[in-house]
Amino acid sequence: MTQMTQRRNNIKDVQSSCDERGIAIQKVGVSDVHLPFLIKTKSGSFQSVLAKIKLTVDLPQEFKGTHMSRFIEILSDWSQKPVSYREIENMLTDTIDRLQAKRAHIDIHFKYFIEKTAPVSGLTSMLDYDCVFSARLVRGEHLDFMFGITVPFTSLCPCSKEISQYGAHNQRGIMRAKIRQQPGRFIWIEDLAEMMERQGSCQVYPLLKREDEKYVTEHAYENPKFVEDVLRDLVLVLRKIDGVQWFEVECENYESIHNHSAYAAHVETVER
Amino acid sequence: MTQMTQRRNNIKDVQSSCDERGIAIQKVGVSDVHLPFLIKTKSGSFQSVLAKIKLTVDLPQEFKGTHMSRFIEILSDWSQKPVSYREIENMLTDTIDRLQAKRAHIDIHFKYFIEKTAPVSGLTSMLDYDCVFSARLVRGEHLDFMFGITVPFTSLCPCSKEISQYGAHNQRGIMRAKIRQQPGRFIWIEDLAEMMERQGSCQVYPLLKREDEKYVTEHAYENPKFVEDVLRDLVLVLRKIDGVQWFEVECENYESIHNHSAYAAHVETVER
Amino acid sequence: MTQMTQRRNNIKDVQSSCDERGIAIQKVGVSDVHLPFLIKTKSGSFQSVLAKIKLTVDLPQEFKGTHMSRFIEILSDWSQKPVSYREIENMLTDTIDRLQAKRAHIDIHFKYFIEKTAPVSGLTSMLDYDCVFSARLVRGEHLDFMFGITVPFTSLCPCSKEISQYGAHNQRGIMRAKIRQQPGRFIWIEDLAEMMERQGSCQVYPLLKREDEKYVTEHAYENPKFVEDVLRDLVLVLRKIDGVQWFEVECENYESIHNHSAYAAHVETVER
Amino acid sequence: MTQMTQRRNNIKDVQSSCDERGIAIQKVGVSDVHLPFLIKTKSGSFQSVLAKIKLTVDLPQEFKGTHMSRFIEILSDWSQKPVSYREIENMLTDTIDRLQAKRAHIDIHFKYFIEKTAPVSGLTSMLDYDCVFSARLVRGEHLDFMFGITVPFTSLCPCSKEISQYGAHNQRGIMRAKIRQQPGRFIWIEDLAEMMERQGSCQVYPLLKREDEKYVTEHAYENPKFVEDVLRDLVLVLRKIDGVQWFEVECENYESIHNHSAYAAHVETVER
Repeated sequence: MTQMTQRRNNIKDVQSSCDERGIAIQKVGVSDVHLPFLIKTKSGSFQSVLAKIKLTVDLPQEFKGTHMSRFIEILSDWSQKPVSYREIENMLTDTIDRLQAKRAHIDIHFKYFIEKTAPVSGLTSMLDYDCVFSARLVRGEHLDFMFGITVPFTSLCPCSKEISQYGAHNQRGIMRAKIRQQPGRFIWIEDLAEMMERQGSCQVYPLLKREDEKYVTEHAYENPKFVEDVLRDLVLVLRKIDGVQWFEVECENYESIHNHSAYAAHVETVER
Repeated sequence: MTQMTQRRNNIKDVQSSCDERGIAIQKVGVSDVHLPFLIKTKSGSFQSVLAKIKLTVDLPQEFKGTHMSRFIEILSDWSQKPVSYREIENMLTDTIDRLQAKRAHIDIHFKYFIEKTAPVSGLTSMLDYDCVFSARLVRGEHLDFMFGITVPFTSLCPCSKEISQYGAHNQRGIMRAKIRQQPGRFIWIEDLAEMMERQGSCQVYPLLKREDEKYVTEHAYENPKFVEDVLRDLVLVLRKIDGVQWFEVECENYESIHNHSAYAAHVETVER
Repeated sequence: MTQMTQRRNNIKDVQSSCDERGIAIQKVGVSDVHLPFLIKTKSGSFQSVLAKIKLTVDLPQEFKGTHMSRFIEILSDWSQKPVSYREIENMLTDTIDRLQAKRAHIDIHFKYFIEKTAPVSGLTSMLDYDCVFSARLVRGEHLDFMFGITVPFTSLCPCSKEISQYGAHNQRGIMRAKIRQQPGRFIWIEDLAEMMERQGSCQVYPLLKREDEKYVTEHAYENPKFVEDVLRDLVLVLRKIDGVQWFEVECENYESIHNHSAYAAHVETVER
Repeated sequence: MTQMTQRRNNIKDVQSSCDERGIAIQKVGVSDVHLPFLIKTKSGSFQSVLAKIKLTVDLPQEFKGTHMSRFIEILSDWSQKPVSYREIENMLTDTIDRLQAKRAHIDIHFKYFIEKTAPVSGLTSMLDYDCVFSARLVRGEHLDFMFGITVPFTSLCPCSKEISQYGAHNQRGIMRAKIRQQPGRFIWIEDLAEMMERQGSCQVYPLLKREDEKYVTEHAYENPKFVEDVLRDLVLVLRKIDGVQWFEVECENYESIHNHSAYAAHVETVER
């Protein structure tokens, strides 16, 4: 026993004292933890991201409290290894073991960058997507893994186009999808983003030269879509993802003619 | 027929055209609408609040789009009448009728103020609570109404108190509850806030004189509570609310010794 | 002397003890205070708003601290009276007196609503504008009062229009102005908002019927403006405001073809 | 001339057309650009951060608009090289050249991580600090470089400690400093953070074991400080930084006994 451990052992462990309210807590842990994390990329490499994390476990009714510092130790360890679906499972197994729990949950929010190629000039630039890995592991069961992504896009209003002599109001919108696949199935961020951003009136790009701007303007005008159209096309796309069991999709247009948004949402459990 | 209606009728109604994708949309409408709203108070009066609103209806598979301007008309009308549980039901009935829908949902987020009396000086001041009315109405069914509130409080760490020769770290925390009661039952914001804020180490107040500061400091020190303790006491309190069918509770301590939060959460369907 | 005052007097006033670092503090007080406030309207009435407030005074080098509870007492008192330029001056005079200070500063952020009339249907609805009153008073001097407002608008890109066969990308943008006028001069929120929102490609409205949507679509297409154009037209407008001494203006377009904004800014001291 | 360049040249350059309003714009460019950036560390390496960037140049009165895509090209190039004071100067020189401007400004906001060692256990963990590089370059002049950092800390109230029989309210607070040094002088993020965080009642750490928690609790209790005390000690520290010409400092305590903050601020031009 080291001197350090001895010293710690002399300090009372209040958390481990007994609780008599008879309430097992479903989730207890840490939230709003900011850490650099490494996310595995489709190309076989990894990307360093800024993660905002919530990590919790269940707490049996007989214990007064959990041991908060262990969550930070776990996250510190895992922040240094490239992660994806499989590593998230290992991280939660690790959490269950180190906290002597039955269940563990994690939410990792991060901005992820994907290279976009401008449609005419072919110039490349990095576009940012808000992503979330949201996972739950019950000891002895399969990982319940949900992956969420927010994709910006251009929407152009079919009504405005139809009723106006010229022009049509358009705006930036965002599509959010959250999907749960069968255990063992996994879709790359890059692949889901690409499938989704085709469903708007046009894609957005950080870098557009004049010839590109002409293209995206005309392309959006040729593809007018209500928020409802985008949502329906997303539903069709998400249903086809390999092994998808459940998905939730939202679409929000930051209307250029209003100070509020047009909104549509849909949740579906996919029959197999 | 007025001249105005004639003019509008000459403009094509793209939204009403037919859609062939076979997808009925669960929610379509407006989000991020900011409006003044009048919320009924327990005392029989009302409070003018700044509301952030999402209002949606379902859309049958055969229609291409909904009529977005009607949502704003409905909200504009209702923003001028004091509302509570019963009026939210009427607002959603109105929405279902005017949008020719089967279901309508609304989320109204607002800051609500309640007068607090300082514990020793007896001086009064107004404390702000983040609230949400979240309701769903299916034509011909009972209103599904959820009420949520975020209550700030002081938490003082039992471990820190126990192991330290003097002092104990404490901090502001927030408790969030969302409850669903049996149809027809309703709890006032004032009553739920009061029940909840008793569960921290101490309540917070905007205005405290020195004699009050002495009181809250000592009171918190005498009532050390982990985030788990606060959560468990909240669970006990929420279970007893008249006709409660379901609740969700979260507790988050903005730790004074860390740059992250301690967090606990629990969801429960109450057996009756 | 009341019993309460006696009790308070028996508690040591640490704030009034002596400080020896020789540093007079420029601003000390409270921030992130949320309170309902009443803002005077141009029509002679007032509007109840949700205010977020920072209120500070200077602190002479010989005192250790200020008396924080007095700021809340002052704000609570003033939250119940309709305020505008003149009342802000009185509030700061009151603050200087009650805190025995030489200078006081206040920032009041609030959403303010103005009725907008749709351009063709004539229907009315309430649009939200983010506003700020930012004022400083030095004992014995004139009030230094700055008024800021954020106005949403539609911008349509001249380049996109010019180079494309049809359509033109457009988006919501916001213009922010902050102005300081000669002592005694004051411009109503309603008047500044109206002058500013004419400078975009088109104004935005919460409620638009189809005939209005046709109008705003075509009107924006007929008035293409870069972020630079809007900024320059704002500069021309702001220079002409009665007694304006200084202004700052920003313009930000939430580009529909990018995931970032186009931005322009300008600060000017007006020669008289 | 490449085919691509030919194609672009056939598309009208609206931005370069002439403007007759006679207004030279001080700042025009892009804002809310998110990109990974590499920040040089004190140890000679670099850290990959998530940057939020605003980059602008001036625009002479005779030109209608700037060329927005070039800003993204510049940022994309520079996002791949480790940067610090000197590289920011080169980036702005590059911007001035490529935009044919006289002045360029940049604001880069990012979260930066520094390893903290727990005071007793000696365990290490990464703490996040919000930072900003804010720089301005006028062609032919020295770089005007400001560096800002937000440091979380623990504050413990001297009044509460003095008047209470036991305990003392404490809370997380943040200190923000922004400094400008003489041309050529530069302080490492690590050094400024370390100097600042010693000025609170205690430092915060992501990872604390029980023996550490005992230490920070007692250490904070032994070092009670008002928001005014922290501010004054920060002023003393900032005045001594090598070559500092100007600084601004703010301190905000998220009071554990209130739902608002205690606040202090000070700006100073340092005489040399």
